[in-house]
Amino acid sequence: MYNLKRILIGRPLKSHEAGEQKLNKKKALAILSSDALSSVAYGPEQILLVLVTVSTLAFWYSIPIAVGVLILLAALILSYRQIIFAYPHGGGAYVVSKSNLGTYPGLIAGGSLLVDYILTVAVSVSAGTDAITSAVPALHAYKVWIAVLFVLILTVLNLRGVTESASVLAYPVYLFVIALFILIGVGLFNIVTGKVSPELHTPIGTPVAGISLFLLLRAFSSGCSALTGVEAISNAIPNFKDPAPSNAAKTLMAMGTLLAILFSGIIILAYYYGIRPLAEVTVVSQIAEHTFGRNLIYYFIQGTTALILILAANTGYSAFPLLAVNLAKDKFIPRMFTVRGDRLGYSNGIIILGLLSIVLIIVFGANTEGLIPLYAVGVFIPFTLSQTGMMVKWIREKPPGWGGKLTINTIGALISFVVVLVFFMTKFSQVWPVLIFLPVMLFIFYQIRKHYDATAEQLRLSTCEPAMHVEGNVIILPVAGITHVVENSLNYAKALSAHQIIAVYVSFDREDEAAFEKKWKEWQPDIRLVTLYSPYRSIINPLSKFIDIIQHKAKETNYEVTVIIPQFIPKKGWQHALHNQSSLMIRTYLLYRKNVVVATVPYHLKK
Amino acid sequence: MYNLKRILIGRPLKSHEAGEQKLNKKKALAILSSDALSSVAYGPEQILLVLVTVSTLAFWYSIPIAVGVLILLAALILSYRQIIFAYPHGGGAYVVSKSNLGTYPGLIAGGSLLVDYILTVAVSVSAGTDAITSAVPALHAYKVWIAVLFVLILTVLNLRGVTESASVLAYPVYLFVIALFILIGVGLFNIVTGKVSPELHTPIGTPVAGISLFLLLRAFSSGCSALTGVEAISNAIPNFKDPAPSNAAKTLMAMGTLLAILFSGIIILAYYYGIRPLAEVTVVSQIAEHTFGRNLIYYFIQGTTALILILAANTGYSAFPLLAVNLAKDKFIPRMFTVRGDRLGYSNGIIILGLLSIVLIIVFGANTEGLIPLYAVGVFIPFTLSQTGMMVKWIREKPPGWGGKLTINTIGALISFVVVLVFFMTKFSQVWPVLIFLPVMLFIFYQIRKHYDATAEQLRLSTCEPAMHVEGNVIILPVAGITHVVENSLNYAKALSAHQIIAVYVSFDREDEAAFEKKWKEWQPDIRLVTLYSPYRSIINPLSKFIDIIQHKAKETNYEVTVIIPQFIPKKGWQHALHNQSSLMIRTYLLYRKNVVVATVPYHLKK
Repeated sequence: MYNLKRILIGRPLKSHEAGEQKLNKKKALAILSSDALSSVAYGPEQILLVLVTVSTLAFWYSIPIAVGVLILLAALILSYRQIIFAYPHGGGAYVVSKSNLGTYPGLIAGGSLLVDYILTVAVSVSAGTDAITSAVPALHAYKVWIAVLFVLILTVLNLRGVTESASVLAYPVYLFVIALFILIGVGLFNIVTGKVSPELHTPIGTPVAGISLFLLLRAFSSGCSALTGVEAISNAIPNFKDPAPSNAAKTLMAMGTLLAILFSGIIILAYYYGIRPLAEVTVVSQIAEHTFGRNLIYYFIQGTTALILILAANTGYSAFPLLAVNLAKDKFIPRMFTVRGDRLGYSNGIIILGLLSIVLIIVFGANTEGLIPLYAVGVFIPFTLSQTGMMVKWIREKPPGWGGKLTINTIGALISFVVVLVFFMTKFSQVWPVLIFLPVMLFIFYQIRKHYDATAEQLRLSTCEPAMHVEGNVIILPVAGITHVVENSLNYAKALSAHQIIAVYVSFDREDEAAFEKKWKEWQPDIRLVTLYSPYRSIINPLSKFIDIIQHKAKETNYEVTVIIPQFIPKKGWQHALHNQSSLMIRTYLLYRKNVVVATVPYHLKK
Repeated sequence: MYNLKRILIGRPLKSHEAGEQKLNKKKALAILSSDALSSVAYGPEQILLVLVTVSTLAFWYSIPIAVGVLILLAALILSYRQIIFAYPHGGGAYVVSKSNLGTYPGLIAGGSLLVDYILTVAVSVSAGTDAITSAVPALHAYKVWIAVLFVLILTVLNLRGVTESASVLAYPVYLFVIALFILIGVGLFNIVTGKVSPELHTPIGTPVAGISLFLLLRAFSSGCSALTGVEAISNAIPNFKDPAPSNAAKTLMAMGTLLAILFSGIIILAYYYGIRPLAEVTVVSQIAEHTFGRNLIYYFIQGTTALILILAANTGYSAFPLLAVNLAKDKFIPRMFTVRGDRLGYSNGIIILGLLSIVLIIVFGANTEGLIPLYAVGVFIPFTLSQTGMMVKWIREKPPGWGGKLTINTIGALISFVVVLVFFMTKFSQVWPVLIFLPVMLFIFYQIRKHYDATAEQLRLSTCEPAMHVEGNVIILPVAGITHVVENSLNYAKALSAHQIIAVYVSFDREDEAAFEKKWKEWQPDIRLVTLYSPYRSIINPLSKFIDIIQHKAKETNYEVTVIIPQFIPKKGWQHALHNQSSLMIRTYLLYRKNVVVATVPYHLKK
């Protein structure tokens, strides 16, 4: 086990080595923009999927809808640029919302994002697996297991650490960008040179029966799913090399530009080729096949698309553990999320993220398209809250030039809010779970916080009366037979110079009981033996009742009750399965249910 | 949890209530023959599936093949009748083989059957689910979950106890028999009155190109899968009311007669109707539809077939725990299988059987037809061994009339052995796993036996030198802060009148270390504090090394080392997840890896 761990995640790092994990712009762009860039692979498809419900004639609407998406993209990029400079230590929507709007909005933003990053991983990996099975249909039956395997690989890679994963993951991201540039370049060239039949597409402005504003808004909100992941850079500023904020801002602008080019390119090609969304072949795959046929370039494009879709999950892996640390430091989620692993990453966050997304993948059979709207809403709620938080900040602090900054964030907040509304109006059947899990999460956050506060209060020495002084000890020794294990425990008990030692034997039938009492009297005449008859064959119940009686008496004289559990330890791990786990069960029960000290005296077998 | 258990399995029973769980012939026939009778639902189909690989012209061969199966059935029923009278206390193939042929053959028989009962459950429940999805194709997508649900229901029913499950399960079995009698009756009537077109079937004797002896043997061995479950009654004689052996023998004969009628009926109808095996609709379903159309009777037949296929799994639930008890008493499998549960059934066996078959169902996606040959071989190996065992017994003991008995068992053994050979020759690609898992199981059985023997040897007081006398105690107290929890543990440690108390603090950075030492000196100047710096943020490693040093010194003077672990216990179960499980991890590590006494001092939080 230990060796396997070393091979998978590498040697442990010392605490002071943490500083060496900074990213340059090129690597940061690769690992932090993979989510946003990968959205290009399914965003346009989502728009077409809505339009096709009316008619293929309606496909020309994808062009004006894409213009709307690009406007929103510009607003978001500029807004997040401001967040980067205002919160150079990162933290994203949770920190911005909490410090400007209060705890509740902060928790809503944090809770949405926490769930969202799990969805990111499940949705991205499933989409990447889809791209693979589009190319190799024979793998279709193994979809779920392929997706799970990829999640496991990403989890291990992230457990190895940020810089290592960045080095591995940078290539596929840039290869994807190059692949799409080639596809879009060749495709546009074909269109311009008239090689694409104009009959494939309906001209812009063609009247379409049955189209409605509702439907167009629905298509627009679907297209907005291409903007998820835009917030990632603002969360991860501390991972940048100095000067971190300006490097992060430049990376953000580069990402925005790339995203705009790729998104428009795919939309335009899909429109001119008259691509229809199909169940088994993705839109990008169809465009590539149209442009190149099923040759090497096609497989290169499909391969890099699959890779980037899978790597998009990595944005979740970068952001989830950091967000979890912030929430855990504020005591809203379990403290374990603040513990650094062997490689100094927040390994509990990474592992939990991997596990939960595997659960999602298995439950949905790797068909996670249905989760995309939920995922998009989970992004746009924190978008709205963080932009609103920034508005409040500018109005409160009024720094030089705050008017312009306020304008940008106001536009960002308004559009994000409109998108959220559109989602709720047009896709309520898919996004309603948000209305349930957000309140539930808030409730859980508060319960956890309440518990931590109460615990700290109770443990602090200054606040309560001092613990009772212990006068002496009554020892209870459950015995299952007359063996070396019991002898060993008994010798230990005698050495404790206790006030009293009581051996307890639980018997399942009367004859056995009498026989044991006789044998005991011969073996240990000085140690009192109590036998308990248990008609229901339970050991714990009669023992527990007996302990209560003894404890009641002991309390009167300030005596502590210690239960000594004799336990023999087999030599090899697998051998544990061969023994009734009575001592483990008794120990666990007593510890959590009774106020007695439980001491286990081991007897290690030699063969 | 406790209440849920009571609702599901009922109130616990006292040990002496065990005697009330006896079955009359009617109930016994129902629950012990469900496996054999249900084979009728897939046995004929298995024959046709082999014949169809040549041509539908070959279907007439199903008639002579069925005659062969019936001869084998007669031989087996008579052989098992003799086993019942020779081993009136039950135990089946394992006991018969072990006592007549020796331990190895006994373990081969026992191991095969153990695996086989797991396969019974998986195969039967999957087949039952198939019957349901044949009738309601919309459920096809949920096959796995439906099958898992049925396994869970059967597990709970069996945890409630034998008589209760028999009362519930008797109805469906008899309904199935009635349903098939109606189907066969009406079908034969239609054939005799000429309502079935003679063009549907090819006359017996039609020459078929490409037919071979190999293929016919293959079809025959497939048909033999209808004979699985015949041994169940001989295993379960102790469950019968007195006079148990004669009641069991009568039940066995009744089962054989029913099985012969139903099997021949289905084969004849399938032949006359010219039924071809289809992927999505079972043969029985086709026959029923042919005879009645999709009306109420059709659904009645499908429903009872589905039920009996699922209930066939119950034979596994009756036999697996009893076999496991026998193997566990002989120390070949873990002792936990001998423990009676709340309802006096061997609940560990029932639960393990349920879990393993759920695993099989999920792994094979409820498509377990591929397992049927494996399952059949797993039955015919113990058939052969137990009949051979009986032969040896008759030759050794030579009771009055042993010649006739020997003849019957010899015929049984020979035919069973031939079937095993045919399986290996004709379906090697499906039955080869037997050749791997049987030796592996034997190896495991022997390892377990070796461990139990070695353990008993080491625990016995008479065999080793007495345990060392303990002179005194050195206490190590790992502390994580200055709190009530630590204070509480320290008071306990002081009361133990130990030779020495050492508090240990593991720090992750140097500044924190110094600060803690200062605070400790103010709070507990008399208790020695050792701080351990841990650059890799591990608590267990430095602590473990420190314990080694102390223990080394303590050993020289016969002092025992006790590690006292302060642990606060939250009020509610879910709150445990909110605290780092350090104390649990330290406790587990020390117990299994070190030879020190580990005492946990609980501090129960009040809110």
